[in-house]
Amino acid sequence: MTVITASFVNQDRFNQNIAELATIGKLPNGGVCRIAYSPEVIQSRQLVQRWMREAGMTVHIDAAANIIGTYAGKRSGAPALVTGSHIDTVPTGGRYDGALGVLAGIEVVRVLRDRSIQLDHPLEVVVFTDEEGGMIGAKAISGTAFSEPEYYRRDDGTSIETCLQRVGGDWSKLATAKRNPSDIAAFIELHVEQGGVLEHYSKQIGVVEGIVGQHRYIVTVIGRSNHAGTTPMHLRKDALVTASQIVLAVNNLAKNASGSPVATVGALNVVPNAANIVPGQVELTIDMRDVDQEHLILLSEQLQQQLQAIAKSSQTEITITPILQTEAVLATPQIQTAIVQTCEEMGLSYCHLPSRASHDAQEMGLIADMGMIFVPSQAGISHAEDEYTSPEECAQGVEMLLQTLIRLDRLYPIRDVPENKPASMPPYTSETL
Amino acid sequence: MTVITASFVNQDRFNQNIAELATIGKLPNGGVCRIAYSPEVIQSRQLVQRWMREAGMTVHIDAAANIIGTYAGKRSGAPALVTGSHIDTVPTGGRYDGALGVLAGIEVVRVLRDRSIQLDHPLEVVVFTDEEGGMIGAKAISGTAFSEPEYYRRDDGTSIETCLQRVGGDWSKLATAKRNPSDIAAFIELHVEQGGVLEHYSKQIGVVEGIVGQHRYIVTVIGRSNHAGTTPMHLRKDALVTASQIVLAVNNLAKNASGSPVATVGALNVVPNAANIVPGQVELTIDMRDVDQEHLILLSEQLQQQLQAIAKSSQTEITITPILQTEAVLATPQIQTAIVQTCEEMGLSYCHLPSRASHDAQEMGLIADMGMIFVPSQAGISHAEDEYTSPEECAQGVEMLLQTLIRLDRLYPIRDVPENKPASMPPYTSETL
Repeated sequence: MTVITASFVNQDRFNQNIAELATIGKLPNGGVCRIAYSPEVIQSRQLVQRWMREAGMTVHIDAAANIIGTYAGKRSGAPALVTGSHIDTVPTGGRYDGALGVLAGIEVVRVLRDRSIQLDHPLEVVVFTDEEGGMIGAKAISGTAFSEPEYYRRDDGTSIETCLQRVGGDWSKLATAKRNPSDIAAFIELHVEQGGVLEHYSKQIGVVEGIVGQHRYIVTVIGRSNHAGTTPMHLRKDALVTASQIVLAVNNLAKNASGSPVATVGALNVVPNAANIVPGQVELTIDMRDVDQEHLILLSEQLQQQLQAIAKSSQTEITITPILQTEAVLATPQIQTAIVQTCEEMGLSYCHLPSRASHDAQEMGLIADMGMIFVPSQAGISHAEDEYTSPEECAQGVEMLLQTLIRLDRLYPIRDVPENKPASMPPYTSETL
Repeated sequence: MTVITASFVNQDRFNQNIAELATIGKLPNGGVCRIAYSPEVIQSRQLVQRWMREAGMTVHIDAAANIIGTYAGKRSGAPALVTGSHIDTVPTGGRYDGALGVLAGIEVVRVLRDRSIQLDHPLEVVVFTDEEGGMIGAKAISGTAFSEPEYYRRDDGTSIETCLQRVGGDWSKLATAKRNPSDIAAFIELHVEQGGVLEHYSKQIGVVEGIVGQHRYIVTVIGRSNHAGTTPMHLRKDALVTASQIVLAVNNLAKNASGSPVATVGALNVVPNAANIVPGQVELTIDMRDVDQEHLILLSEQLQQQLQAIAKSSQTEITITPILQTEAVLATPQIQTAIVQTCEEMGLSYCHLPSRASHDAQEMGLIADMGMIFVPSQAGISHAEDEYTSPEECAQGVEMLLQTLIRLDRLYPIRDVPENKPASMPPYTSETL
């Protein structure tokens, strides 16, 4: 086992990488726009591949256009330790979401390479394709990608075939991107929290318990539209009064539940929406997420019971239509423990929390042991230009990733794989060092 | 006193008038579109004036373009008994709202004229200008019209000067339309209920207690927009949860109050209104109406107290801006009594109720004793093409108006006005008889 107890990450070098990547697709207020398959993404992929090679990795592009950089281990036939994230963004995104995890993986390899350290396992750094738009990269690796290309057609009409071709992928061979579970020892992803929990509790590191499952519904309330002046209160069927009861029921359901589910009515539209007309119809969305899949199902059942009770007492008609259901994926307990031990060794404060946003890790968790490390997001802001994590916090995250990977290298035993003969390392050159 | 105890109204003649007027601005599904100052209104005004003259009235157009038909009384210098309503409609209106009251007044005169009956008081039938768009006609008569012409500019940009000119009015002389209270003995308006109270209670006639006052507000709730996945429940400032508490508070305020106020949140808009974002801002309208002015003020005070309490407990910011305040106008008790006595004499069922919609009567009530008679609206529907009151119900309303006016003719004493010498009546000709 290799033990590194002090900080070895080069904070300046790392944050210069973050800044340099953020110049591609740069927006006026500090954010970035690198939509999947765009010229900006192509340019940033080239830069990242260059950095991977300079750090001593071999680079492979799979059929889903995932970039897979490999830093050889002592036992080349052993299953890989895998890290990574994405470099595509939402249209007005921040500079940390995704980029942090990719560049951290490269920095980890640089630190190892600087000290001529090889892990037992091969170490892969993956840039997953189109995380923000449907996770085709991670889904291809886990084998859950849709086979119907129309599903992935872009809003501008571009086919997925064309998109993947632009970035070195090949739709017709997508199945070849699927990874065999036995080839991966564990996957770990460093990411900004995209929420305000760490900041609120003044914690430096988030130990992710899992990635929440999500149930999303559209609810329609049909009442009776009527003159707001001439219709006495007891003769009304006010759809907005019913909808308001639903909003509060959804809120209370999540607030009073055990664990830490969230439930939100984010969109609500009133018909006809005029000051002098009793609302006749309301359409609203309900989004529920919980890291405990059974609990999520229970919450959905409770929701439906409450909607029935509200419909009955309000004499309005309520219909509920599921529009999205994803399963919760738990982080592997021994990876969570490894992260906690690393925090304690490094003297970093931490707390456990679910990831309530989607990540490539949720797909990787379907085929491999999985864990995630969060660093704080200032004011909980993400998917916005003012997304911010300080240089120190970023570097702490990279250090956590490094030390946790080293710990996992020991934790995951390698059987029946002979140690390589010491090979001559490729020369290490990087303009950025 | 002239006593008519049987039914003297010509139901067929009257409902033929209703049908003929409804051909002007006819819509495909039985409704009408006669927006104030439109060619359809001009055409319908000509028809109504012809009917007035044929019924034996003299016709005068005042500066506000109100059509005033006068059927001479025995004492020509006496203050007038006034009835009437409007013939303009909302863009997709029904055939009864307004038209009923105007044509009923003409039918009353026909019945009197058929039987060579003159009341002591002159009887006026008024077609008020633009009831649906701002009541400039009734307001000019009561002296409450705005002096600023911009206030009355149409949505299509047409000035009020041009509008009034089209229908025989004169903006520059608007003040001359104001009536002296001593010139009017009483005003009474027949109208469809535009609500469902009479139908609900199976009553034939509504005795209006007054026209409600109205307070209307815009309320803005400022919370904090956040990711619906990553923001735990206890860290949220959800503007829609607060808004839902307001909707229910408004509803309960009116439901639990004494009397019969109504309160409505009719319009509600969420920002940013996306399924995966905790709502950061909500704007909503509150409309409160009560026939008891003091009670309405008390309700508004209670509303503001409740909003303060909700703001405090929800940690969101709530601002409330008044956008409309009209005073409640009570119907004169002795006119209500006269209507009740007429109902009892005619064997018609009745109940007292407030008018929760605006009417020309509320302006007339500012300068004269005032009353209103309601007939049922099927399913409470109005301002819609399927507004419906049966021919029998319409005729009962006209009969009520006739008999109540005869009763008021006796109730309101005439002092110091000599009786006219019996004059030769003008010849009575009508194509419709």
